[in-house]
Amino acid sequence: MTVAQPERLDLASLSLTEDRIAKLREDFPEVFREGRLDFDALKRALGEWVDPGKERFGLNWPGKAEYTKVIQQPSIGTLRPMREESVDFDTTQNLIIEGDNLEVLKLLQKSYYGKVKMIYIDPPYNTGNDFIYPDNFTEGLQDYLRYSGQVDSAGLRMSTNTESEGRYHSKWLNMMYPRLFLARNLLRDDGVIFISIDDHEVHNLRSLMNEIFGEENFVATVIWQKVFAPKNSAQYFSEDHDYVVAYTRHRESWKPGLLPRSGEADARYQNADNDPRGPWASDNLTARNYYSQGLYEVVGPTGKKFSPGVGLYWRYSEKSFLELVQDNRIWWGADGSNMPRLKRFLSEVKQGAVPQTIWRYQDVGHTQEAKKELLDNVPFQETENVLNSVKPTRLIRRILQLATSPSSQDVVLDFFAGSGVTAHAVLAQNGEDGGNRRFICVQLPERLPIPEASLRTIADIARHRLVGAGKLIAAEYAGKLDLDQRTEPLDLGFRAYQLTTSNFTPWDGDPARFGAPVRQPGLFPTTVAEQLELAVDNVLPGRTSEDILAELLLKSGFELTAPVERLTLAGKDLFSVAEGALLVCLERELTLDVIEAMVSRDPAQIICLDAGFNGNDQLKVNAVQTIRTRSGSGDTKIEFKVV
Amino acid sequence: MTVAQPERLDLASLSLTEDRIAKLREDFPEVFREGRLDFDALKRALGEWVDPGKERFGLNWPGKAEYTKVIQQPSIGTLRPMREESVDFDTTQNLIIEGDNLEVLKLLQKSYYGKVKMIYIDPPYNTGNDFIYPDNFTEGLQDYLRYSGQVDSAGLRMSTNTESEGRYHSKWLNMMYPRLFLARNLLRDDGVIFISIDDHEVHNLRSLMNEIFGEENFVATVIWQKVFAPKNSAQYFSEDHDYVVAYTRHRESWKPGLLPRSGEADARYQNADNDPRGPWASDNLTARNYYSQGLYEVVGPTGKKFSPGVGLYWRYSEKSFLELVQDNRIWWGADGSNMPRLKRFLSEVKQGAVPQTIWRYQDVGHTQEAKKELLDNVPFQETENVLNSVKPTRLIRRILQLATSPSSQDVVLDFFAGSGVTAHAVLAQNGEDGGNRRFICVQLPERLPIPEASLRTIADIARHRLVGAGKLIAAEYAGKLDLDQRTEPLDLGFRAYQLTTSNFTPWDGDPARFGAPVRQPGLFPTTVAEQLELAVDNVLPGRTSEDILAELLLKSGFELTAPVERLTLAGKDLFSVAEGALLVCLERELTLDVIEAMVSRDPAQIICLDAGFNGNDQLKVNAVQTIRTRSGSGDTKIEFKVV
Repeated sequence: MTVAQPERLDLASLSLTEDRIAKLREDFPEVFREGRLDFDALKRALGEWVDPGKERFGLNWPGKAEYTKVIQQPSIGTLRPMREESVDFDTTQNLIIEGDNLEVLKLLQKSYYGKVKMIYIDPPYNTGNDFIYPDNFTEGLQDYLRYSGQVDSAGLRMSTNTESEGRYHSKWLNMMYPRLFLARNLLRDDGVIFISIDDHEVHNLRSLMNEIFGEENFVATVIWQKVFAPKNSAQYFSEDHDYVVAYTRHRESWKPGLLPRSGEADARYQNADNDPRGPWASDNLTARNYYSQGLYEVVGPTGKKFSPGVGLYWRYSEKSFLELVQDNRIWWGADGSNMPRLKRFLSEVKQGAVPQTIWRYQDVGHTQEAKKELLDNVPFQETENVLNSVKPTRLIRRILQLATSPSSQDVVLDFFAGSGVTAHAVLAQNGEDGGNRRFICVQLPERLPIPEASLRTIADIARHRLVGAGKLIAAEYAGKLDLDQRTEPLDLGFRAYQLTTSNFTPWDGDPARFGAPVRQPGLFPTTVAEQLELAVDNVLPGRTSEDILAELLLKSGFELTAPVERLTLAGKDLFSVAEGALLVCLERELTLDVIEAMVSRDPAQIICLDAGFNGNDQLKVNAVQTIRTRSGSGDTKIEFKVV
Repeated sequence: MTVAQPERLDLASLSLTEDRIAKLREDFPEVFREGRLDFDALKRALGEWVDPGKERFGLNWPGKAEYTKVIQQPSIGTLRPMREESVDFDTTQNLIIEGDNLEVLKLLQKSYYGKVKMIYIDPPYNTGNDFIYPDNFTEGLQDYLRYSGQVDSAGLRMSTNTESEGRYHSKWLNMMYPRLFLARNLLRDDGVIFISIDDHEVHNLRSLMNEIFGEENFVATVIWQKVFAPKNSAQYFSEDHDYVVAYTRHRESWKPGLLPRSGEADARYQNADNDPRGPWASDNLTARNYYSQGLYEVVGPTGKKFSPGVGLYWRYSEKSFLELVQDNRIWWGADGSNMPRLKRFLSEVKQGAVPQTIWRYQDVGHTQEAKKELLDNVPFQETENVLNSVKPTRLIRRILQLATSPSSQDVVLDFFAGSGVTAHAVLAQNGEDGGNRRFICVQLPERLPIPEASLRTIADIARHRLVGAGKLIAAEYAGKLDLDQRTEPLDLGFRAYQLTTSNFTPWDGDPARFGAPVRQPGLFPTTVAEQLELAVDNVLPGRTSEDILAELLLKSGFELTAPVERLTLAGKDLFSVAEGALLVCLERELTLDVIEAMVSRDPAQIICLDAGFNGNDQLKVNAVQTIRTRSGSGDTKIEFKVV
């Protein structure tokens, strides 16, 4: 019997190669022959743009080629909600995800592709004391499960990356390369990424970013003055600064927001002649740049004559100058006998300041301020020797000010979240300007040297900090007048998630689909006998509907915080996602009635458990038929998948 | 007849490969077999340090391998004195050399190997508008002669290096690579190099420097705040800064000098309790860093008790604390009831400030200041659109302060000298602190867009500027009291030199020794017939004794400013260099008498013109014999060379 079967939901994360191939196919259809790429044809099509030389410009390192494959390997883990560790789980749009950021970035590819407005990360600087996560290119999720103690309670240890071990930079580059590559996919066309770094790797980071993002998308290297007093014990130089390197996704699509004008700058605008146009500042009318019409003599109100001066030119032609005089835009000093200057009105200047590249600690904080902020929310004993390079929230808030807008629900991502400063800054900035920015923070549960009951890992610290920061911000802004005028309440909560294995045993039992040979017996079914045992119900024991729903959202391309309603149709419980776009029924005893009821609600997609059919093939066939009939009648097609 | 002949002076610059091979031979004698290097033996000798992988870490670019050969090719040009363009030619120790810096760096290798204390360069930033000198790896000096109009009056033009042309970074790297390599050789073991650069190439420069100088010799990237007002018209960020990248020759041998302490810093030291040890500032006695002996209670003079505070520790143990109290080094506030603080005495702090990495324009100047300084000495019309990125002397003076000492005759080199700011800064700093630093500046005679009679090239601008700067500094410091106490007069002069062809036609007529096929007929003898014609006198017409002497100094390893005396011995004129270490006789009619007279003065080296023997082989044999006899009698051996 060759009857129609529902399609199986692909539990692997988005395959990047497929996506890129599709784009190439759109632009160069002629180079595809029988569905395969003819590389020689592509070379011919590209003509003289192909570099004929054997030597290439660029940074190379051992492992680079292998890590290109790492990027292409999909993740088959999932993100499991941690309701107990969350704040306002049911209403918040913010996410804190605990797990290896490489796997998490892969899992986010479907739901958050091109949706992130701004990324800030603070990766290890590779100073010789940094811990480097022990991933390698043969095992992805498995490594993490062992690392985080989910498989082997002892866990893998991270190792210090020291210079003496060799491959010092290569290890760091191999760690960064696939993560930055995947991060770029998540950025919007008008998105931007900021990366904190210091002299140890800034040059390699620039080379890496030029390769991944394109040199033309480099925007600036910001100098953050991180210390407020020199170290007089320094042997060479006392280090004042860190870098923050910024690249856009597409430089043409991005414009930085203006920063608030300082009172200092505004104070320079006065109104010496009570001009009805308001305060103004006077500006030089001469310049050194050669200007063919810029050499003439002008006569002031007292009859005094003025020339631009040796080697100088007027900035305006004589005609324009006289027009400015007519419009009372020339200032000759209080007694009318000074060198003329141009009146620039405050009302006509930009309503904000263009960002500069040197950021002083007076404006964005220093490392001591950052430590203090953290210690306000986390008892200090936990953080000693773990978080040496915490950033002040003011630093991140300045980035938010210039790279996001308050009221566009901009998504901010930080996948080296550390103690959660980016999340904290988003809450604080939203508190101040009434914004509705959202954050996604990812942090490895790196263990603390002296764990306590409540705080065992850095991920614990981040969540703990945010609970405290949320309360402080709520208290601080509760009384604010403008808070009442806001149309939506300030979102100070967050949903916590955890990286773990899929909720489902794999359909084909092919361990390769899990990224690695399964070494841990019992975790996945490895023999056909084991698979058959599990065939009746392929959901891992102990996983809840909420767990399953989260995975289905991720893997069918819905955001984790997509609105979900619980419905009862034909006596069965189900979930309506994104206002009915997706209907999910996790019932173990499906009926044709519930299938028909779902179809009648006109969703774009229906997902059911395969176990829900209880092996009843006739019911499956009827279900497919019901959905087909509907789609055939001219309405939009409904996708029907089982898992 | 196989009689002894005097050795011919090698007119090529120092061969670097030979020098490095000799060093390798010293360290690994066993890997040399019959005078040749056995590479497999070397690999075995180095054991596990040899990287077995095929992929290597590092920056690569087209041309890198070929430019390694460029380094090894000796220069056979010379530096010809320009007495008319100099100031105090006979007494100054400063040099300004006009020419392609690659050829000049090669020519300096013998005389200045390991003698330079500090290098500062301001190379093209490769912004897309920079002119790149048109050298290539087949012709060295010949290219330059054509470029500078010494061969073909039309001259080669420099071309703008734009992104659209491709090989954008590679061209820049090929230009920098051999120059930085040769520059390193000139540095003393305790020397240091500072390089100005911006975001366009800073990452490639760091990679290049890590390769040439070794990553372990990186010291700091200084941030120079170059503008004093933001550009509010900037599309992305308003650029505040340039970089100054610093590498030592050997990090362990170098220590930065302390900078003058600011009055601001000293003003913080007062003397509230009239302590006989002088002014002091009070310092915090607690810290967040865990200290096992740092938790105890102390009692102040009023009986009040103090603990370090929540999450804090005393910096000293209780025992040390009580000792500090005994020594009156604890301050309890004016009325004795405050939290205790430590008294730090001004007399006990460092007598200067450790350099920091952010340099503010208030301290080291900005680009406008730099332009103004230049225009004080050079009419502005000449510099427009040519020198866009002039540096302020205060920036270079800060580098001089931390990288040189005033009274050690430190040699300062700048081989991208531009308008001569480094030279200007050396004069100014010597003027201020009575130092005797010397400079060597190298600048290409890049033509100005609107040449005038006196100023046709950037090299002209540099010399013109220094004439003016010297006068200003002389006037400024002439009246200073401390000037009178100085043991030597302030050297405000400079010797000007010019890169050109050797003064001598080559001995073997082998064009390959000149680095390239000789394309310009008549410049060098290319046929045996032509060589024979010139055999009687191989000095190029129009070259003076001063020209020849300069070349002989360079090529026998004496500094260009080595002291030279004119002597008359046995009726012949000769030059006594470096207090008689080298005797040079350029007479065309040599006699045995003058040879004997020279020998009797016990020099280390004697150089004569081959033409001086007038083909008299017997005289040559006798001369060699005379010198040998002397050397044979147990005295130090005298080197005898003809040219």
